Amino acid sequence: MSRADQAVQEFLDTEETKLHSLKAFLQIPSVSADPEMKSRVVEAAEFLKSYFEELGMDKVEIFPTGLHPIVFAEKHASIPGAKTLLFYGHYDVQPTDPLGDWVTPPFEPSIRGEHLFARGSSDMKGQIMATIFALESVLKSGELPLNVKFILEGEEEVGSPSLEGFIQTHTDLLKCDMILNPDVGMINKDTPTVVNGLRGLSYFEVRIDGPKVDLHSGIFGGNVANPANVLASIIAQLHNPDGSVAIPGFYDRVRPLTEEDRKMIASNPTTDEEFLEVTGSPMLYGEQGYTMLERHGARPTLDVNGLYSGFIGEGAKTIIPAYAKAKISCRLVPDQEHAEIYELAEKYIRSIVPPTVRVSFIKHSGGPAYLADDAPGLPNLIEAYKATWNNDVVLKREGGSIPVATVMQKELGVKSILSGFGLPDDAIHSPNEHLHLPTWKKGIQAYIRFITSFGA
Amino acid sequence: MSRADQAVQEFLDTEETKLHSLKAFLQIPSVSADPEMKSRVVEAAEFLKSYFEELGMDKVEIFPTGLHPIVFAEKHASIPGAKTLLFYGHYDVQPTDPLGDWVTPPFEPSIRGEHLFARGSSDMKGQIMATIFALESVLKSGELPLNVKFILEGEEEVGSPSLEGFIQTHTDLLKCDMILNPDVGMINKDTPTVVNGLRGLSYFEVRIDGPKVDLHSGIFGGNVANPANVLASIIAQLHNPDGSVAIPGFYDRVRPLTEEDRKMIASNPTTDEEFLEVTGSPMLYGEQGYTMLERHGARPTLDVNGLYSGFIGEGAKTIIPAYAKAKISCRLVPDQEHAEIYELAEKYIRSIVPPTVRVSFIKHSGGPAYLADDAPGLPNLIEAYKATWNNDVVLKREGGSIPVATVMQKELGVKSILSGFGLPDDAIHSPNEHLHLPTWKKGIQAYIRFITSFGA
Repeated sequence: MSRADQAVQEFLDTEETKLHSLKAFLQIPSVSADPEMKSRVVEAAEFLKSYFEELGMDKVEIFPTGLHPIVFAEKHASIPGAKTLLFYGHYDVQPTDPLGDWVTPPFEPSIRGEHLFARGSSDMKGQIMATIFALESVLKSGELPLNVKFILEGEEEVGSPSLEGFIQTHTDLLKCDMILNPDVGMINKDTPTVVNGLRGLSYFEVRIDGPKVDLHSGIFGGNVANPANVLASIIAQLHNPDGSVAIPGFYDRVRPLTEEDRKMIASNPTTDEEFLEVTGSPMLYGEQGYTMLERHGARPTLDVNGLYSGFIGEGAKTIIPAYAKAKISCRLVPDQEHAEIYELAEKYIRSIVPPTVRVSFIKHSGGPAYLADDAPGLPNLIEAYKATWNNDVVLKREGGSIPVATVMQKELGVKSILSGFGLPDDAIHSPNEHLHLPTWKKGIQAYIRFITSFGA
Repeated sequence: MSRADQAVQEFLDTEETKLHSLKAFLQIPSVSADPEMKSRVVEAAEFLKSYFEELGMDKVEIFPTGLHPIVFAEKHASIPGAKTLLFYGHYDVQPTDPLGDWVTPPFEPSIRGEHLFARGSSDMKGQIMATIFALESVLKSGELPLNVKFILEGEEEVGSPSLEGFIQTHTDLLKCDMILNPDVGMINKDTPTVVNGLRGLSYFEVRIDGPKVDLHSGIFGGNVANPANVLASIIAQLHNPDGSVAIPGFYDRVRPLTEEDRKMIASNPTTDEEFLEVTGSPMLYGEQGYTMLERHGARPTLDVNGLYSGFIGEGAKTIIPAYAKAKISCRLVPDQEHAEIYELAEKYIRSIVPPTVRVSFIKHSGGPAYLADDAPGLPNLIEAYKATWNNDVVLKREGGSIPVATVMQKELGVKSILSGFGLPDDAIHSPNEHLHLPTWKKGIQAYIRFITSFGA
């Protein structure tokens, strides 16, 4: 029996116990956005600490932060000269509302068919425990060929306000050769997936001010520029008729897709119909000249994320609003610079704002795009996936941003492998979040094969 | 001493007492929009009832409605064959927030300089008491040459939900030859003003639905139409570059302004600078080819009154909103039909909505425009104004709608005289609402001259 098979067998022998532990973890309502749940977030951190201690980790520590604590744990390899693997994860979860839409309560884990229903089951307590259980099975079945570290934060769902500072001030503690971040998902349950590219982000707010207060639309209508109408007209001018972004210079640094890029992107088996089905939109829409998959990860975008002006309650109120504002964000691709994109956007918007109103801006978060075809350890993980799923691995460019990967690359000098076992229909961030248990168990076996692949 | 002078003298002899009564009325927080103030609204109705009873009215009655009561009072003329004058008013007031911006509390009337500060002082408890005090002085100084009726509602600031039904079912009670509605204002303190035209209204809501739920803008951005962007583009297409409304057919029934109309409108002494000053906007803006005063009352408009989509809290949330909605209203002029304008708007918007989203509509209130150059009694009031102010009266077309005037014309067959003594800077609906006492006192004298003009 190979070293990997020994460890996989250990897992198979104990999976019921492990599922029980996952359920206990899921019962803790670690909703990071809810101030009333602060002590329950700490409870989740303490659950992890206890589990690590029982596992015999060499170091386990809870680091307080300004908001929710960071859990660190470390186990030394049983062989000398071993490489170090760092697992990243977050143990906080999204809020649960609308609570009434849950079939079973979000913090009472319930198995129905092949799925485990609970808030955090897929995003990402299930993923965290997959990494820990894989380590556990390797530890209990023989030597550990890697140094393994964990950094598990409790603030991901509220934007990770403490994480970057913690990483900057703990680079020695977090020193590693490889990073595995499972906070991403698979294309489908049969296709192990690695995200090798992420889009960047530039997020800002535009505010148009007109009258000093809301005006009576009967008395003043027709004689002052209406900030809501002006804002609408500005937003309308942010796109061209072909769906491309109209900000001058926006595409200047966009790396054109090569034939090879396009081929790799096209290897993703997701169809337009499948993608559309998930959205619930009447039809897909996007920049002309690109496929859905190309637009998904390899083309930049501009979207309004929020709009507000005037009276938005029930019924009618006849005012000309004093101001109107929009939250707007651009998803960026290599080699766009987020700060430059913000400047181009502000400059363009200022150039189209009429003199009948005033404009102001708030700059929110920004981050660069990320490409990680060459993350250390990736070939080993791909082999482990192939052995577990008997299927080819898809390398995919993802639309979202994972700022922690960028921060870790900068501070620790290591690119992250982004690969987890969530599925597109897991309903993360929605009611009835669930985890597909057969996929999750395969994932643990794949992680076991990954860790043991560094031995011998 | 003329009959009018006798009554004016009675007022001058008792004005301190009357001011005291006004203050007592203003102390009652009859905020119709606030459910917690329901009993205080009733208290204001009872204040009026008591005052009418002490005045020796022939009939005083409080009529309950589904929300806040209507006060009716009637006094028979002391001469036979007299005409009947109906006063309309509302004794409810706007909410007071932001409370912190008030120099003195809104329900503790305070005189500073020539102004009486209190919520409702100008809009319109002061106006109501002006009509009652005028009647009182006429009554106490000799014969009453008119039958006088009052209908005072407590729901005007919440859209008068009960008034139309009440009028429809009490046409005998309200039977009259003239109606005076003082819920409008003067151009300035030296210029008695009669509103002889009002714009109509068509108010509706457009909702654009895209994805079934808010989507992650990283994962889905670039592949679905964003409802907020689509809505902005629709709103942008509602106006032409020259500031006119782009809905086909919108202007078809608009009665063109004659040279005489334009001359009369231009006689209003309000300057563009004065108008701009009140708005606080950087500059005026409107349909090309018309003056500010023409646009103010005699040209139709389209304004967004409210906009909502997605995330509007502090900070950044990277979503593609599931839907976006706008409240939109058109101010109408003769002979536009509000129902037709709504249909034209809906038809046009449906024609420009792309197939990537779904559109739906909510139709809110609507009402026709109103012209009342020929309201009965108007010549008498104009003479009374001239005698009081020693200045010409301005007839003006007003931008807002006064639905009660339309309802009364339909149900009672009488056009309302729209004329009151509020001033443009009275801060109605805002903190530190106030009443200019010298103007108010002149107004009472003018009403006295108006009522007594029907004698002999």
